[in-house]
This record gives sequence, C-alpha cells and structure tokens, in this order.
Amino acid sequence: MQQLATLIEQVKVQQNRVVSIAQADEREVLLAVKAAVEEKLCSFHLFGDQTKLETIAREIDLVWTERITYTHVSNVEESAQKAVQLVRDGKAHVLMKGNISSALLLKAVLNKEYGIRAGQVLSHVALFEVPNYSKLIMLSDAAMNILPSFDDKVAITNNAVSVARNIGLNKPKVAVLAAVESVNPNMQATVDAAALVEMNQKGKIQDCEVDGPFAFDIAVSKKAAEIKGISSSVAGEADILIVPTIEVGNALYKSFIYFAQAKTAAIIVGAKVPIVLTSRSDSSENKLYSLSLALVSSTID
Amino acid sequence: MQQLATLIEQVKVQQNRVVSIAQADEREVLLAVKAAVEEKLCSFHLFGDQTKLETIAREIDLVWTERITYTHVSNVEESAQKAVQLVRDGKAHVLMKGNISSALLLKAVLNKEYGIRAGQVLSHVALFEVPNYSKLIMLSDAAMNILPSFDDKVAITNNAVSVARNIGLNKPKVAVLAAVESVNPNMQATVDAAALVEMNQKGKIQDCEVDGPFAFDIAVSKKAAEIKGISSSVAGEADILIVPTIEVGNALYKSFIYFAQAKTAAIIVGAKVPIVLTSRSDSSENKLYSLSLALVSSTID
Repeated sequence: MQQLATLIEQVKVQQNRVVSIAQADEREVLLAVKAAVEEKLCSFHLFGDQTKLETIAREIDLVWTERITYTHVSNVEESAQKAVQLVRDGKAHVLMKGNISSALLLKAVLNKEYGIRAGQVLSHVALFEVPNYSKLIMLSDAAMNILPSFDDKVAITNNAVSVARNIGLNKPKVAVLAAVESVNPNMQATVDAAALVEMNQKGKIQDCEVDGPFAFDIAVSKKAAEIKGISSSVAGEADILIVPTIEVGNALYKSFIYFAQAKTAAIIVGAKVPIVLTSRSDSSENKLYSLSLALVSSTID
Repeated sequence: MQQLATLIEQVKVQQNRVVSIAQADEREVLLAVKAAVEEKLCSFHLFGDQTKLETIAREIDLVWTERITYTHVSNVEESAQKAVQLVRDGKAHVLMKGNISSALLLKAVLNKEYGIRAGQVLSHVALFEVPNYSKLIMLSDAAMNILPSFDDKVAITNNAVSVARNIGLNKPKVAVLAAVESVNPNMQATVDAAALVEMNQKGKIQDCEVDGPFAFDIAVSKKAAEIKGISSSVAGEADILIVPTIEVGNALYKSFIYFAQAKTAAIIVGAKVPIVLTSRSDSSENKLYSLSLALVSSTID
C-alpha cells in the first residue's frame, strides 16, 4: 500500500462499524461525519446538544440516515463519559473526539470505573504519505508520551507494529531514531535504540524487524546508509520511525506536513479501541484518513 | 534573500579571503576547492600529503593558480594543528575540514595552546532553502551540542543571530521550538523557551525577536498560528529555529534535505572563525554553499 486513499478502500470491505463521537455538535465535526457517511465508511453515534446538532445538520444538509444516531447530553463531561461507555458496552468500534478537549476525553478513557484502558501505554501513531518517500511511513510518538521511558518505548513500538499489521504490513521495518548511529552513553536515545534492537532479536518485540540507532537519513535513504557504510535491511526502507522524545516526533510530524507536503492519518492506540483526535487545523481529507485508519485498526468485532 | 545561490554573489563582493583546509588530500575535497576557485570565491591554504595532493590535482585537472598554496604535513594531527595555527596567526578567515574526523579537527580548535576558541559555545548553524517556505530558514543546533543547557541555548541563539546578521538579516525572527505552545514544567523545552523570550525582552539577547515555545507548525505557518489563536510577529515567519536537543535538530535537518528537497549551507560558529565541516554525503552544491556561508560569516578582516 503506497497511498492513504487505499485505507478508505480497506474500510469499505469491512463490516459496517460504529464510531462514537464525544461532543459532536460542531460544524467541522459534522462535516466530517457527513463526508464519512457519503463514503459509506461507517455508522456514527453522536453525543452532544440536541438543538445544536439539529441546527448544524440543517445548515450543512446532513441527512439523518440510518447510519447516524444521536443522544442528547447536557455537558462535555457527560458527553465524554457516554461516548466512552458506548465503547465499553461493545456497541462502538472507534472513539472520536468532537468539540471537547483531548485532555477531557482521555480522562474519560482512563477512568477506572467506566473507562476503556486496556492496560497498555496509550500512544499516538501517525501514518504519512510523503511524496519523496517510496512507501507509507509511520511515526510514533509525536503527541502523547512526553519523555517515554524505555518500557514506554517498547509499548510504543508494539502499538505501532500492531497498526502496521492492521493495514497489511506483516513484518514492518522499524527504525529507532537518534542523532547518530553509534551507541553513546551520553545520548539516551542511542542507548534505548540498542536495547530495543536487542529485545527484537530476543523475540521480546515480535512481528517486526527493529534496527538503530539511526539518524533520520539512514532510516529513509539507502544512499545515505551506503555512504556511511551501514548495512541493514531496515536502513533506507523504514516503515516505522520510533522517536526518542515528543519534541522529535512533533517536529518531524509537522515538517512532513508543512515542508514535505505529506498527507497523514493519525490515531491514539493502546486503549480497547482506536481513538481519533483530529483537530480543527487538519484538512477534511486528513480527517477521513484518520477515521479510516482507526476503523481499519479496530480489532473488536 | 530567498536563495542560497545569493550567498555566492555576496562572497564575490568581499575582499579575497583565505580558507585553511586540514588534510585536503582527498578527491572530494579538492573537487570542492577546484569549484570554489573557478567561482573565484576565495583562496586556499591546503595542508596534506604533498604527493597525494599533487596526484589528485593532476587527476581532476586542478590548476595551481595563485589562489592555492599548500604545505606538506606527515599526519592528520599535524594537519589539524597547522591548519588551526594559520587561522590563529591571522592568515586565514575560515577553517575547513578535509579528510580528517570532525572530532580531531575540533580538538585542535579547542587546544589551549594553539587553538582558536573564542570563549563562546561552539554551535552548528544550518541555513536552508526549502521549496515550501517563503524565505531562507536557519536551524540550530543540529550537530554539536547534545543536550544544551539553558546557558548553551542562549549562546546557540546568539551564534545563530550573528550568522543571520552576516547574511543581511538585521532583526531575525527566532522561534524556540517545543512540542506545544504553553509552558509545562514537565517539558524542559517549553521552560527554556519562555526564559529565552524573557532574556530577549530584557535586552540580554539582542538584535533579534525571540518567541516561543512554538510547535514547528506555529513557527512556519501563519495559518496554523491563526487557527490556534496565537498572535506573534514571529509565528509563521521564523528566520531561525532553535531546537531543544540534538535529536530534534538532526531529525529536522535531515527531513528538510531528504523529504522537503531543501538545499543547505552549514557551518560551526563560536570560534575565532567559522568552520566548515562538510561530509562526503553532501552534494557539491551544498559544499559550495557551506563554504560561502562561512566566508560571509567570517568577521576577521
């Protein structure tokens, strides 16, 4: 798969899945719902203010087909709780953020009583279609884990590999990024990278091929790897980039979008179902891609 | 100035300057010398093995014009020491790395007896021409300082601003990068960014306009800043990006080159003269740009 648009095709062959949206009563959110329904991607259960939902629906010509159900809630906390509970009750396959802060939605996700934590680390996985790279490339973690510990990095890697497998990559090549290719005790990124490689070799991180530490050029360019004399089947062909800190992930994510004209799909994984946290600045195309990646990555039937 | 090629024009109106090259007896290095001499950029004093220098010169048709002088040395340590001493004696305006490790050359630069340290932090400054950005953009530090302290970041910023002024930007806009725009005590990058902004406001970092913490998109996109409600004259118009760690700088640097098709010029500043540390993987065009940036940034007459 070389294009994000194929995600949409992949969703269409699945059974019809339900997306639960917390606080859907916003124009941008309902436009995304409308586009997804028109593409016959999935069904939705919307939580939000009934009057607002109906008003915006009229404004944007959203038709209340059988694919869309809604429940009136009186505030965002209730919205988050009910949207999460629908997932917990097994009635939704994906959770999506509407007009509510990410923090508030994630608080409901992690709630001990009605939440949908799966015991794992939650991590952000972004999948990119970059014009200057020969295949799709995944990046994690660009938005959730600030300064991941080594154990967090193991979980982040496993989460990314599970998404890769869901989109059809059976043995993804994982490049662990640092600023250099040799292990330097003064550079934690290189130490952790070497340890991740070892865990992969010992079979403790499975279904993928991990190598590093690699600087970015070694991960994505065979020529750069050759010049530096690095022989690795991951070098120049990375499917997944694991970054050392949120600052590296966030900067790369945005440089791909703003400087390399990449398209993207991004989700949070590690809870019972994938979570879509699109923001207003995402293009409508990227929103559909994120929703599709979540639907493809949902393993609940 | 929107293109790196204008650096070459800027060099040509300067007086003829001398570049001292440690261990110049390598084909790639002498090809760069040949190109620079043909462009009438500067003069060179080469240190290296005489036989090798003469052999390679014949192979590549390098003519020994009055612009090129050479001194035979018997090993790389002597090469580094003599190349540095030429600068210390006021006879060269730029130091350039030839077929020698960066570590060895920098050791000579920092030598207490004959070195050319200027009491400041040495930092790496890279200037990019990115097709998707409206002007040249500078990045620091992508290669020298691993985990810069706050004081290091002040010096890194001052070094970058001095280079910006040398290429004709009188009051560069400096964006201090982090993963978010609000100060979070758990994210040192945001704390340092706010402190750099304060130092700028109090006049302790001068001749520039510092703002941040900014995620990358806020630094380079007015639209992203508007959507997030961030009002700043630096937002969307950054001339200089200051990164929190070498991993962020290195990843961005390489994503600009490999994914955003950027051209680049990079030098080390903070010593008595700018230092050029090009590597074999740099294109010949980027090598000329780096040399030009060093020549333009040399303040010794």
